[in-house]
Amino acid sequence: MDTCVITFLPDNKKGRVSKGTDILNGAIAAGVYINSSCGGEGVCGRCKVIVKKGDVKSEPTGRLTKEEVQKGYVLACRATIHSDVEIEIPPSSRLKDQQILTEEAKVERLKGVFSEAGEVERGIELEEREIFSHSPLATKLFLKLPPPTLKDNVSDLERLYREVRRKRDIPILQTGLANVKKMARLFRESNWQVTVLLGKRNGTTEIVLIEPGDTSGRDFGLAFDVGTTTIVAQLVDLKTKKTLSTKAAYNKQVSYGEDVITRMIYAGKEAGLEKLHHLVIDTLNGLVSAMADELGISLNEITCIMCAGNMTMAHLLLRVDPTYLRREPYVPTANFIPVIRAAEAGIKINPRGLLECIPGVSSYVGADIVAGVLASGIDEEDALSMLIDIGTNGEIVLGNKDWLTCCSSSAGPAFEGSGVSCGVRAMDGAIQKVEITREDFQVKYSTIGGAKPIGICGSGYIDCLAELFKAGVIDRSGNIKEDITSPRIRKGKEEAEFILAWGAETETGEDVVITQVDIINLIRSKGAIYTAARVLANKMELELADIKKIYLAGGFGNYLNIEKSIWIGLLPDLERDRFKFIGNTSLSGAKFALLSYDAMVKAKEIAKKMAYIELSVEPAFMNEYTGSLFIPHTDIDRFPSVTEKLSL
Amino acid sequence: MDTCVITFLPDNKKGRVSKGTDILNGAIAAGVYINSSCGGEGVCGRCKVIVKKGDVKSEPTGRLTKEEVQKGYVLACRATIHSDVEIEIPPSSRLKDQQILTEEAKVERLKGVFSEAGEVERGIELEEREIFSHSPLATKLFLKLPPPTLKDNVSDLERLYREVRRKRDIPILQTGLANVKKMARLFRESNWQVTVLLGKRNGTTEIVLIEPGDTSGRDFGLAFDVGTTTIVAQLVDLKTKKTLSTKAAYNKQVSYGEDVITRMIYAGKEAGLEKLHHLVIDTLNGLVSAMADELGISLNEITCIMCAGNMTMAHLLLRVDPTYLRREPYVPTANFIPVIRAAEAGIKINPRGLLECIPGVSSYVGADIVAGVLASGIDEEDALSMLIDIGTNGEIVLGNKDWLTCCSSSAGPAFEGSGVSCGVRAMDGAIQKVEITREDFQVKYSTIGGAKPIGICGSGYIDCLAELFKAGVIDRSGNIKEDITSPRIRKGKEEAEFILAWGAETETGEDVVITQVDIINLIRSKGAIYTAARVLANKMELELADIKKIYLAGGFGNYLNIEKSIWIGLLPDLERDRFKFIGNTSLSGAKFALLSYDAMVKAKEIAKKMAYIELSVEPAFMNEYTGSLFIPHTDIDRFPSVTEKLSL
Repeated sequence: MDTCVITFLPDNKKGRVSKGTDILNGAIAAGVYINSSCGGEGVCGRCKVIVKKGDVKSEPTGRLTKEEVQKGYVLACRATIHSDVEIEIPPSSRLKDQQILTEEAKVERLKGVFSEAGEVERGIELEEREIFSHSPLATKLFLKLPPPTLKDNVSDLERLYREVRRKRDIPILQTGLANVKKMARLFRESNWQVTVLLGKRNGTTEIVLIEPGDTSGRDFGLAFDVGTTTIVAQLVDLKTKKTLSTKAAYNKQVSYGEDVITRMIYAGKEAGLEKLHHLVIDTLNGLVSAMADELGISLNEITCIMCAGNMTMAHLLLRVDPTYLRREPYVPTANFIPVIRAAEAGIKINPRGLLECIPGVSSYVGADIVAGVLASGIDEEDALSMLIDIGTNGEIVLGNKDWLTCCSSSAGPAFEGSGVSCGVRAMDGAIQKVEITREDFQVKYSTIGGAKPIGICGSGYIDCLAELFKAGVIDRSGNIKEDITSPRIRKGKEEAEFILAWGAETETGEDVVITQVDIINLIRSKGAIYTAARVLANKMELELADIKKIYLAGGFGNYLNIEKSIWIGLLPDLERDRFKFIGNTSLSGAKFALLSYDAMVKAKEIAKKMAYIELSVEPAFMNEYTGSLFIPHTDIDRFPSVTEKLSL
Repeated sequence: MDTCVITFLPDNKKGRVSKGTDILNGAIAAGVYINSSCGGEGVCGRCKVIVKKGDVKSEPTGRLTKEEVQKGYVLACRATIHSDVEIEIPPSSRLKDQQILTEEAKVERLKGVFSEAGEVERGIELEEREIFSHSPLATKLFLKLPPPTLKDNVSDLERLYREVRRKRDIPILQTGLANVKKMARLFRESNWQVTVLLGKRNGTTEIVLIEPGDTSGRDFGLAFDVGTTTIVAQLVDLKTKKTLSTKAAYNKQVSYGEDVITRMIYAGKEAGLEKLHHLVIDTLNGLVSAMADELGISLNEITCIMCAGNMTMAHLLLRVDPTYLRREPYVPTANFIPVIRAAEAGIKINPRGLLECIPGVSSYVGADIVAGVLASGIDEEDALSMLIDIGTNGEIVLGNKDWLTCCSSSAGPAFEGSGVSCGVRAMDGAIQKVEITREDFQVKYSTIGGAKPIGICGSGYIDCLAELFKAGVIDRSGNIKEDITSPRIRKGKEEAEFILAWGAETETGEDVVITQVDIINLIRSKGAIYTAARVLANKMELELADIKKIYLAGGFGNYLNIEKSIWIGLLPDLERDRFKFIGNTSLSGAKFALLSYDAMVKAKEIAKKMAYIELSVEPAFMNEYTGSLFIPHTDIDRFPSVTEKLSL
């Protein structure tokens, strides 16, 4: 088959693909990320690129203007290459280094596990008794076996089991044929001094590995937060419990859709599942080898992995078809996934190393949320607490040490910078903070990394909405008051819009705006989350005011302005000190479970304990939701502090 | 590489091998069995063949006479082929269809398991309570899963587990990723009606397979007696407990040595282990596919295997190096081998099907003996019993329901027809019964299959020794009385010999004789077994006369003449009704364990309970042994019935 070289500008990255391949696939081959939120369907119009050189055939599309077509723009997903080509990725289509959250949840409760790390910062006060033991998913144990004699002539395998059981209380011990085969020679050549790796596997303990001599000092594990957009990995010394490295990368699947629904749909296409599986595994392997290289650790010394991710990511990670997650009655293939060898999923660590996944609860409340509860510890608190993880879906958990209930609310992707006209992910150049003066609508903004604006990310939109409301640019329904005279307010192509940054200031040269439709979308998103929280509380015959602590988790959480979130009615109007940011609890939870079997047992208990409420069949949800489509709410009495400030 | 066609006469079987291959390997390629007891070392001189056509290069050897060399004889193991060749296998080198014992032990105790088979014949009287339950290694279970709803939305895997646990009490249930991957689609396409195969695996239960619809009526298993010489297989309907087919075949390893020691040595050579492993697996696969074909059973419907074999065979079966079995302190790699997939060993049944091995006790008391105890039930009897399995090693178990002790005695291969001048295995043409008149030394013999004599097998040698002694041809030391005038007694090449069959009567045209050296070898063999039995009893401060029942097991067992065995001092002189033949208990034990988890648990208890006595370090053994090198014994008072008959 003919192959062509595809070169991406401005980074000059090259890839080789067969003739007829589309540019989006060419980008993957070249290791280049192109924005795309529809999964290559030609619908979102985000993957615009400019053909600089070479033979490219593209389909007609309504997503490109005449001017763009004249300048050589094509949609990467709808254009195939038929010679060596040079393609320029304009700033709007570029996925830059994201403001990736690699911090783990900094909660005090697990100081037993993390005492060395000194990472205690904020969190929950818990007593010593609740600290998890140090008992990793896989542990190395050095053994000096007594050599056999005529009087002590038990077989090699029973000799090994006997010695392990002298040191550990393990009722069901097993090992595979591979170890049995090499055992006799290995024992004798290593003078009966060996290291075994004991892995906890589905209710039994497996002798995973047998190595000559004492290698117990070199035993490493990985915790993964497998996110839809971003994958964060930590390499942990299983013996000292220290985190040696934390790295994050885009999930390579992003070129096939921004949200889990698009991924599920793509997985249903021919070879789609295979492709998405390989992309996420590639991402993981890239992170692992980068960390291992930096630290001088051999992949063979990495013996186990603990993963947390939403249910779609968990399915794709293991190459399990996610199709049924999105079909009523929304059933996952497995909430509790058996422990497997990492190699079975294609992850390159020790070939016999183990992979475990934190369990999930339902199709839309996955392991990331269970890990969040584990890390936050709300399942052990007397006080009523709530955990909110804001993303495309807003997952919410409510409860205390006696009960837990949860739901998932389709907030839509607006807070992730998708489905809104100038939305971008939280990357360099994204506007994240906004202030608007009441008098003359002067705008002060700041971007991530201080770069020229390229768009607005989630926290920027929340600020923006609150400021537009406070400045009187929009009314309580979110309508832009078109009678205001200001150069920043204008009639756009089809609707009114507010200009946040002028083209002269921006990276793309185009104005960064928030449109009337954007505002409506954002109000719907915030309304969905608020309503979900309230319906969940009401379902338990409680009021939001009864909640003593609200934990905000997820990458987005840490950059949220609580004051402004309350102003727009995203968060309930409670004393500000009831809110706590706890960062990437998905990653923290995974690390806890990696380092402590008790934590994993706890995670399983949490997953079983969490009662899932399907909001789409709750009549109260729709009734409540309509009322939430105002700023901050139809029933303004629910937001006394906002009312008070408004009256000032 | 050049290849040559090798044709074996008289059967005209052909094989293709590369130039330079030796004839012994050529025979394996052509599926032809050639006698060989030294493992292709050029030492035993048994693999004589005649080159009829083609270019064969052979090494000089003292194992061939000048006449033989002139006639074109070569040793198959020492001659390589360099063109297309035709090779004749003379009768003495042929391995004919063996008188293979395919009957299972016909013991009453397991009538619960075997009630349908109606095979109760002889055996042990036991009470109903001791009957094992019907609970095979793997069981199919048909399930109608309730389809998921919004109210009952547990995941597919938990739904499956829940339904299994409604029907079975299983605490630790696990399954592999392969099943998880296909589960969602399979459940929906089969309308939530599926059959699972539940396998008992190292203390847990595995969902081995998931099949659409109800396939629970088609579930088959295999029991194997993996013998050094012969492999016997039974195909069993796991649901009805019926044995559908029994087949036996030579272990294809026989061309690499007759006994386990030779095999172990061969396994230590380059690629030797690999080769022996493949040969035994080939043999097994041949038996399985033959049985499955005949019965119209698909290999996929065969879901589990239970194996019993001596420790060397168990190691070779799993491609585990047996080297250390024969090195002091004689330690096996594993007495208790983990349950694996049959495919891991290369056995072709359902690719996910399970393979379990009955546990062994030590390097020289293997699973075959444990299976023997299981089948005979001596571990549950009040009365003191002994199990004797006579082969190259004579394995002996002594005990009752409170204790078991065992040993292995190197009887040498004489009773297997090896290491004696006219010895053959129990095959067509083997002399198996002999009578010699006292007056004129007339010989009456009978052969297996009524064919012309080709040699003498084990039972023939026992008869022969007893008859020679009773006829006064040999004295109590076994010396041939050379002063007797009879054409049947003559000075052979180096020593005196007795002619059993004249050349005119035999297949080979040569006399079938028993030589002075043969007699000494046979006396050593019988002495070793008797002494082992006595030392074992004495070790427990018991006399042989205290033993209430002696079970004779193994292929050889059933053809043994008890009266004559006592005459020569092989068996102790006890009331004849204390002796019972129980046939191939290795196979029966395997079948019991295949069909009943209780039986397998019992087998493990037996293996743990059996205290192994290493005779080579027992001072009493050597002292006793010397006394046993007489007919029947130095201390003739131990054989009162023989003394009485001698005095008549």
